[in-house]
Amino acid sequence: MTQAIDIQKATAAFKALKCKECGAEYELKASHVCEFCFGPLEVSYDYSSLRQTVTRESIQAGPNSMWRYRKFLPVASENPIDVGTGMTPLVRSQRLARRLGLNQLYIKNDAVNMPTLSFKDRVVSVALTRARELGFTTVSCASTGNLANSTAAIAAHAGLDCCVFIPADLEAGKVLGSLIYSPTLMAVKGNYDQVNRLCSEVANTHGWGFVNINLRPYYSEGSKTLGFEVAEQLGWQLPDHIVAPLASGSLFTKIYKGFNEFVEVGLVEGKPVKFSGAQAEGCSPIAQAFKEDRDFIQPVKPNTIAKSIAIGNPADGIYAVEIAKKTGGSIESVTDAEIIEGIKLLAETEGIFTETAGGTTIAVLKKLVEAGKIDPDETTVVYITGNGLKTQEAVHGYIGEPLTIEAKLDSFEGALERSRTLERLEWQQVLV
Amino acid sequence: MTQAIDIQKATAAFKALKCKECGAEYELKASHVCEFCFGPLEVSYDYSSLRQTVTRESIQAGPNSMWRYRKFLPVASENPIDVGTGMTPLVRSQRLARRLGLNQLYIKNDAVNMPTLSFKDRVVSVALTRARELGFTTVSCASTGNLANSTAAIAAHAGLDCCVFIPADLEAGKVLGSLIYSPTLMAVKGNYDQVNRLCSEVANTHGWGFVNINLRPYYSEGSKTLGFEVAEQLGWQLPDHIVAPLASGSLFTKIYKGFNEFVEVGLVEGKPVKFSGAQAEGCSPIAQAFKEDRDFIQPVKPNTIAKSIAIGNPADGIYAVEIAKKTGGSIESVTDAEIIEGIKLLAETEGIFTETAGGTTIAVLKKLVEAGKIDPDETTVVYITGNGLKTQEAVHGYIGEPLTIEAKLDSFEGALERSRTLERLEWQQVLV
Ligand SMILES: [Zn+2]
Ligand SMILES: [Zn+2]
Repeated sequence: MTQAIDIQKATAAFKALKCKECGAEYELKASHVCEFCFGPLEVSYDYSSLRQTVTRESIQAGPNSMWRYRKFLPVASENPIDVGTGMTPLVRSQRLARRLGLNQLYIKNDAVNMPTLSFKDRVVSVALTRARELGFTTVSCASTGNLANSTAAIAAHAGLDCCVFIPADLEAGKVLGSLIYSPTLMAVKGNYDQVNRLCSEVANTHGWGFVNINLRPYYSEGSKTLGFEVAEQLGWQLPDHIVAPLASGSLFTKIYKGFNEFVEVGLVEGKPVKFSGAQAEGCSPIAQAFKEDRDFIQPVKPNTIAKSIAIGNPADGIYAVEIAKKTGGSIESVTDAEIIEGIKLLAETEGIFTETAGGTTIAVLKKLVEAGKIDPDETTVVYITGNGLKTQEAVHGYIGEPLTIEAKLDSFEGALERSRTLERLEWQQVLV
Repeated sequence: MTQAIDIQKATAAFKALKCKECGAEYELKASHVCEFCFGPLEVSYDYSSLRQTVTRESIQAGPNSMWRYRKFLPVASENPIDVGTGMTPLVRSQRLARRLGLNQLYIKNDAVNMPTLSFKDRVVSVALTRARELGFTTVSCASTGNLANSTAAIAAHAGLDCCVFIPADLEAGKVLGSLIYSPTLMAVKGNYDQVNRLCSEVANTHGWGFVNINLRPYYSEGSKTLGFEVAEQLGWQLPDHIVAPLASGSLFTKIYKGFNEFVEVGLVEGKPVKFSGAQAEGCSPIAQAFKEDRDFIQPVKPNTIAKSIAIGNPADGIYAVEIAKKTGGSIESVTDAEIIEGIKLLAETEGIFTETAGGTTIAVLKKLVEAGKIDPDETTVVYITGNGLKTQEAVHGYIGEPLTIEAKLDSFEGALERSRTLERLEWQQVLV
């Protein structure tokens, strides 16, 4: 812990850590739990100063990355760690929209986020910038995979030492996608919740900056940019309905916070936005609490292919339930088979290959439309948060095989004829 | 071949296909070879009209994708197939630059290009938009992998039928990364050059739009956007030196064309830019021709892990040699071992995980710096054209393993201690 710089310059708008439960305020240090009530801490801002200094134009004049919203993020540095993260495409859907019967569907695609192809690059960019400001030289995380990729990559870029923790049974692409950046990689025999508990102990003994533990209040603010970007990309308007995956629940609550902040400082007009969330049936404690109208989360033991969102004891789950309820949204869960169908559906209709979390979100979108919970004319934004190349195992065996041929015209013609016959037969079976 | 629309509206600046060898002009149809001299055809433009209608401001007011440069691309449609392709980050390198001793190094990162994580999304976006204008309903390609991913994905998005051809021995991630979009996928027993020959025959018999055969003049223009974006992202200036991978040579020649077009229409000031190219030693016909100062390419049989650039008979190879020579650049090749080191070097210093083609480019960059062929103060741009998650096999076995531990503090402490001891020992060995 050397080289700590001024924790907060006069120009920055973030002013305290505040307990979400009792409202107690704390200094802007590496801390995440209220000493009085054990509630989670969140960053608070001076919105009146933001209202005076931020305009649509000042944002558009900023970098083509999430750092164009720097003033809404809890960093003091004028030079944050900017590797080009964010400003991912918001795609107006045609073919998926038609398939589902929606007229105004948009896909926010963080499957091509820089550098590691998931929304985690946003939260890690903020956390590591803040870690550097607070004087940490080693950064760490408890991860279901994407976060480990992102922490290892951005730490490499920033020249910070890095030790990441993952469950030992992760997908190969996520393990290799961390190792390539040469962190210390700990594969823990256990599920994410066990990894997380171990990391809490390590955080207490080693003085490391754990992006999603002691740096969590800063880290989680990065997800607000997924709200900001959608509002800007829709032409400085809020959508009518959003559908996002739920793991810890943090992403969901921060998109909500992002929309509200833009309204608060006058960048967009306020309006009702429904918040709907997606979970895998094999790990759906938030969906269960929503369905049963509970005000507490009953932890579960995860058992699903959607490993990146398999958090059995979600820290912000109850806040996600609250938001879904008060906005008139829903929280739904889908089976592993539906998740695979969701991945294929998005790929076949839009040319976007997402991982299991995205398959979950698309499957829930479909379920909500079929249940009449999304109006066809609502401007609906579905959040795709990670890339399918990281979870290839999940679809292997469900997408067919190439037709192997010789490098000769007649071999090709034969294979083409056979594949067309097969297609016709499949159609006839469908018709019968 | 139905629904052909006006081939060219009055407002479009592209005016003919022109033979690169004899200058003969042709109509803007699906055709790629000169009938007189068998030279390749290229799209020509009315630059005086572009000079009058395009400004920096008009470009910046366009979409946040490669289609902001639509007027420089050979499409008539006001609504091209825009899936958010392009405008990928140009990252100012700190740690790689320092490691190599460069002061002004930038990384253009198409490893996060939308939708399929390679620069091929650019050329395919143009080719399929043009295919639709020319009335094709089935699109196809001969591919080393990335192009198949891209054609299948963007065809899915656009609702075009798609049949793609790949060598049967491709990396698993590239096969799955095509199948997910449900094209007809032909795995040909043979190398890329054999695949390509077969496709030429199919193009003659099936009336399909092959993006890199009969649509090649349109297709290849998409790579110009890698020149345009770098110029715009450098603040409307050209760099001093670029380093790019060489497969067919097309990308290289089109970055060159892009820079020159921006000078021609007055968007940037003209200046000398050195063009250096990168090949894998196991498939280096262009580097060989450059070294031996030949004006013809001697085809080779590829044998390298860098499969995405393993083209033994490169169509635009000789044009690449010409450009490297006349700009004072170099063309170099590196071994498979150096390619793996290049991938690791970029990941460890910048947090960017590239595929073998990018490893080749980084390794060549290093070689050129060490040979004194890149001045430390030159503004140098290195092009990363694809993502490492697609070629995981290449680095498997070279990046270590996770440390597997129990979910207990003492198990973690033991593993950490062992890994630190190991590091110390490795350092001692280095010092001895
Ligand atoms: Zn409290
Ligand atoms: Zn000719």
